[in-house]
Amino acid sequence: MSAFEIINKPAGIVEVKGFRASGVHCDVRNKGDNRLDLAMIVSETPCTPAAVFTTNVNPSSTVSISREVARCGYARGIIVNSGNANAWTGSSGWKDARAMQRAAALSVGAKPDDFFVCSTGRIGQRLPIKKIISGIENASHCLSKSSTNGRNASKAILTTDTRPKVCAVRIPTRGGSITISGIAKGAGMIQPDMATMLAFIVTDAAISKLLLKKILTQAVDVSFNAITIDGDRSTNDSVITLANAASGITIKPGDKKLIEAFTSAFQYVCSQLADKIVSDGERITKVVEIIISGAKSRSDADKVARAIGNSLLVKTSWYGNDPNWGRIMDAAGYAGVRFTENNISLHYRSYPANSGNKPIPVITKGRKFDKYKPRWRAIVKNRRFSVLFNLNEGKASFRLLSTDLTEGYVNYNKSE
Amino acid sequence: MSAFEIINKPAGIVEVKGFRASGVHCDVRNKGDNRLDLAMIVSETPCTPAAVFTTNVNPSSTVSISREVARCGYARGIIVNSGNANAWTGSSGWKDARAMQRAAALSVGAKPDDFFVCSTGRIGQRLPIKKIISGIENASHCLSKSSTNGRNASKAILTTDTRPKVCAVRIPTRGGSITISGIAKGAGMIQPDMATMLAFIVTDAAISKLLLKKILTQAVDVSFNAITIDGDRSTNDSVITLANAASGITIKPGDKKLIEAFTSAFQYVCSQLADKIVSDGERITKVVEIIISGAKSRSDADKVARAIGNSLLVKTSWYGNDPNWGRIMDAAGYAGVRFTENNISLHYRSYPANSGNKPIPVITKGRKFDKYKPRWRAIVKNRRFSVLFNLNEGKASFRLLSTDLTEGYVNYNKSE
Repeated sequence: MSAFEIINKPAGIVEVKGFRASGVHCDVRNKGDNRLDLAMIVSETPCTPAAVFTTNVNPSSTVSISREVARCGYARGIIVNSGNANAWTGSSGWKDARAMQRAAALSVGAKPDDFFVCSTGRIGQRLPIKKIISGIENASHCLSKSSTNGRNASKAILTTDTRPKVCAVRIPTRGGSITISGIAKGAGMIQPDMATMLAFIVTDAAISKLLLKKILTQAVDVSFNAITIDGDRSTNDSVITLANAASGITIKPGDKKLIEAFTSAFQYVCSQLADKIVSDGERITKVVEIIISGAKSRSDADKVARAIGNSLLVKTSWYGNDPNWGRIMDAAGYAGVRFTENNISLHYRSYPANSGNKPIPVITKGRKFDKYKPRWRAIVKNRRFSVLFNLNEGKASFRLLSTDLTEGYVNYNKSE
Repeated sequence: MSAFEIINKPAGIVEVKGFRASGVHCDVRNKGDNRLDLAMIVSETPCTPAAVFTTNVNPSSTVSISREVARCGYARGIIVNSGNANAWTGSSGWKDARAMQRAAALSVGAKPDDFFVCSTGRIGQRLPIKKIISGIENASHCLSKSSTNGRNASKAILTTDTRPKVCAVRIPTRGGSITISGIAKGAGMIQPDMATMLAFIVTDAAISKLLLKKILTQAVDVSFNAITIDGDRSTNDSVITLANAASGITIKPGDKKLIEAFTSAFQYVCSQLADKIVSDGERITKVVEIIISGAKSRSDADKVARAIGNSLLVKTSWYGNDPNWGRIMDAAGYAGVRFTENNISLHYRSYPANSGNKPIPVITKGRKFDKYKPRWRAIVKNRRFSVLFNLNEGKASFRLLSTDLTEGYVNYNKSE
């Protein structure tokens, strides 16, 4: 039995004790529609924060400011707008981000330094800061624990996403239970190494900052940092987590069992959100799981997986339902990792991995199974399948979620 | 005045003294059409060889065999088929490549070790070696210095290319003249670091192997290794050069002026062939020159150029005539090179770079020129333009030729 329960149809942030949320429209995109574009997440009490940000050398000002917040001992909430990334906006952008942070904090009686600030959307344009400030006022009035507000917050952070991404779990403990809930946005500019994505994960556990950061970093490595849609990495990627202790349950450094349960529940939430991001990639038709095994190091396995998962020729062949293993081999060959042609084995497998879906061999140790071509083709036709690539050189592995590349993606991104 | 003359409408290899060529049909693709698919290049006398090959860790057997030939002191010719890459074909593929090399050499009375062998096309299928052996017999009978045969050779190496790629120049010298002529194929799987491409460059100069290799390597660095279409790197990339001394003119190590003239002529031929490869990229509509300057090192400039030139979001925006500088900035930001947002400057420029085509600023040292947006747009609408990106951190630079990414590319590559 799993150490945690999955909450069915979760309403987002508000599933967790002591957290309120709201999502409102303030017309960031200047389109005069009713689209939700400003989300607010607030804890009634101070939280332990932890966060991971983009590795882009020129991040948005919001990222620089949120990095400072993450360094502090406490935080109270998160303010986020969609539609405008406030990136490459210079010192004006910095001022706007500060104004946004300040307005959000003061609206709930917190200090400005206790508020994370995030923006996502178009690069290089100034924020419509007046609209945002009045939007924040509105958002702070709307803050509640209602499911509607929870759902509105998860909608207000979206850009080219077609649906909200939410996951929540509950860990039963002796004294009660701990809840973890997360919301995310993705869609374009998704690549390893922190994608164009935002994810906010809150919990009512009491946990030290050090331990929370460790669990977050590990979880991000196998979830948000193990997905790729188009290989682009954004200026704004952020994963922020807040723990407010409202459950009354403390995760003590010595309590191995509880740490394990919390870690696996936390990883589950991150992996589910990452999976939802990939599945909702811009105009994709397939999600492909690439499992590299038998590598000398995790970094080698990672390189081979990304070479395959980012190859335009591989991705377009998937789009065409073509089990073109030659392109997979070619991509693996330029990953910068040494391996021997006669050692490798390659299989296709239907999703999910269960007894009914055995891996079908393509090549094993130099031997080719062309007779299975119709079976490879049947697998690759599915909306979801796995590519298993064993280098047979060592014991390290890496799992990457990738997508196909479609004419729709090109068409969608060709214009502003 | 330039130290060399460009030969108008060159017929390929046969422009150079002492070289004969042919291109025949032997039905490698098993389609029963009349497509030329086997080319032979032969020098009447032994040549000094030099070559550069793919960095893919699992190259085609033909690449491994040709590497050995390049190590020898002399070579006599090159045999090439298109339609099948003879890659990932194991020990049978190795035997086929040896048989091909042997048949070609013996057909002109040369030793097997004196013949380069190349294949390009689909990966993972065995060569139809019987057809190729009888094709070689046919090709050796056809060998001549006629323009028709020269053109046939340049056509027989093509795969998804839409046109032959040929360039030839003549260097006048006191005792006569030296000729350099090259043919190439490209189209898909084109990326830095040796593209999916073949190029054969022959000359009638007498030159030492050491000097020829040095000149070749330098030329490849700024030509074939400075282009990108889809970021994929093939198992078969080869640039092979043969110098047969038939002009009677020796390039002596001390003759600086002649070395300079030969080097610049050789670079011109390579750059023209590389340019023709990019311009004929699979279903592209634009060629974009990315010039990175002001970098701390050439390697930094190279990284920034490739991050921009391989970004799907940048490439699709070009396809849509969208001067989306935000995506350029974002890509530069994840290149792994430190630079300061407020130092950089970005310009668009029409092609070619002359007094009538002044660079139009987008950003210079933090200042944005949004008023020029219509002018940026007018430039980006062209089939060819330049992006000038100055990091203002140092003195190194790099020039990369890239393309847009189109729905046509995806459609073309989605099926076998």
